[in-house]
Amino acid sequence: MKSEKTIGVDIGGTKIYAGLVCEGKIIKSRKEKTPESRQGVITLLGDLIDELAEGAKVKGVGLGFAGYVDVEKGEVIFAPNLPGWENIPIKRIMEERTSLPVFVENDVNCVTLAEFKLGAGRGKKNLVAIFVGTGIGGGIILNGQLIHGATYSGAEIGHITLKLNGPKCGCGRLGCLEAFAGGSAIIRSVRRKVKAVHEITKAADEGKKWAILALERAGKYLSLGIANLITILSPELVILGGGVIKAAPRILEIVKEQIPLMALPIAMKGVEIKLARLQDEAGLLGAALGVEQRLGCV
Amino acid sequence: MKSEKTIGVDIGGTKIYAGLVCEGKIIKSRKEKTPESRQGVITLLGDLIDELAEGAKVKGVGLGFAGYVDVEKGEVIFAPNLPGWENIPIKRIMEERTSLPVFVENDVNCVTLAEFKLGAGRGKKNLVAIFVGTGIGGGIILNGQLIHGATYSGAEIGHITLKLNGPKCGCGRLGCLEAFAGGSAIIRSVRRKVKAVHEITKAADEGKKWAILALERAGKYLSLGIANLITILSPELVILGGGVIKAAPRILEIVKEQIPLMALPIAMKGVEIKLARLQDEAGLLGAALGVEQRLGCV
Repeated sequence: MKSEKTIGVDIGGTKIYAGLVCEGKIIKSRKEKTPESRQGVITLLGDLIDELAEGAKVKGVGLGFAGYVDVEKGEVIFAPNLPGWENIPIKRIMEERTSLPVFVENDVNCVTLAEFKLGAGRGKKNLVAIFVGTGIGGGIILNGQLIHGATYSGAEIGHITLKLNGPKCGCGRLGCLEAFAGGSAIIRSVRRKVKAVHEITKAADEGKKWAILALERAGKYLSLGIANLITILSPELVILGGGVIKAAPRILEIVKEQIPLMALPIAMKGVEIKLARLQDEAGLLGAALGVEQRLGCV
Repeated sequence: MKSEKTIGVDIGGTKIYAGLVCEGKIIKSRKEKTPESRQGVITLLGDLIDELAEGAKVKGVGLGFAGYVDVEKGEVIFAPNLPGWENIPIKRIMEERTSLPVFVENDVNCVTLAEFKLGAGRGKKNLVAIFVGTGIGGGIILNGQLIHGATYSGAEIGHITLKLNGPKCGCGRLGCLEAFAGGSAIIRSVRRKVKAVHEITKAADEGKKWAILALERAGKYLSLGIANLITILSPELVILGGGVIKAAPRILEIVKEQIPLMALPIAMKGVEIKLARLQDEAGLLGAALGVEQRLGCV
């Protein structure tokens, strides 16, 4: 039966967004502030799942965490914005609590999976998704499968080094894509003249040179990072999303103009560049879709 | 039956190396100079296959071409060192000529497949192979499968851009890995003081500053390119091979020292770096192994 239901939960540093999903649609959902303690999060997850599952025949639960996740073991290895989440066997904990099959995935991979199945990537088999927010995250789908890598850190696109001895990144290394084109880095590059990227867009629209240059620099390095992914993987599609892309349309223009000049021409021939289509609910949808993939329903 | 035989042929710009292969071993082989005309190559291929197949029960033939190949259609799209090879349906031509199933693959992918099945990559499922010769080529295996990409140009590792407005590459673009660390580029970087990379090694061993600096620069950019692949794909293994690596052991030392400083630490944790194990016969072995994979014998 195709009308089977799954629960998807998107667990971020500030909010937890859970939904009951059927055939790619959210039937019922709940959004909560993320509790401060790990036990608080675990208790809330159990309660949300109980509530959403009530009266529904639920096949399984997908949890998308903002952090490194061991997908096979179902453990959160490390989640920088969730205090105390280090090597936590959350699959086992939640399966005991809910008596449902539970699967764990990285949140950006969930969003990538949602775009692949329901959004900009429908009908494609090979794509790269890049989300530019405060930091930069991404997901890679090849032959219809998420690439996890040996350490489940696959697709850490924000941390490709684009310049030897370049600017310092939040990860401690130098010259990462994120250190050029992530929201925090862009704001740092204008010496914190503003608090948000959309203010830089406004200043650029008013002709302010510093703002124009900041967006150009971010756009140029984002183009370089994406062009390298195209050269390496020759995907059919690159999906671009995230708050910075929305707040700075100029960056998208630069990317569309520069990538074809930077990527290997033969790989460029086969690729489209599209904006992400799904909104805030992409993470929970992807977490739910992950359950269907793992249980082999789709 | 496991003892079935296949024929593999490695078709390069200077030589054609063909062999009858059984259980990963070459039973009989022939090496010929590459004919100048396309028709000459086609005739020679037919003759070599006839000769190798004589008296043996051959399941199929694998052809590895130095160029872009449409693996599904079995066409050579473009082969820079083989004049006249553009959009040539070589699978169909050779199947008509030999009455055997024929499969076509890129030569570096063949070498990667051979290292994966019989060489440094045995027992792994996710690896990246990089071969540094005059140019730089590579192959990527994820979940046990070669990554071809939408345009069959996947794994064009030599053409990752490592520096905006960097040195000019043979491909016409700027700042490619190959333009820093390929054999031709290294020799160009010492203003053609020497004709081959091993002479630079000799000069460096004698304490010549220009030679030491040239190897350091090549090693540093090669490290950067490989580190980015590790960050993006988190493979279990990186295999490094090719003439330049053999001719300049100092580059290998630099790479082993620099990659851990450049790659994302979590991805670095899961990866080994090894030298390629197979020799000159890797291409034909890989072409033959490709046949077994496609026919589903292994």
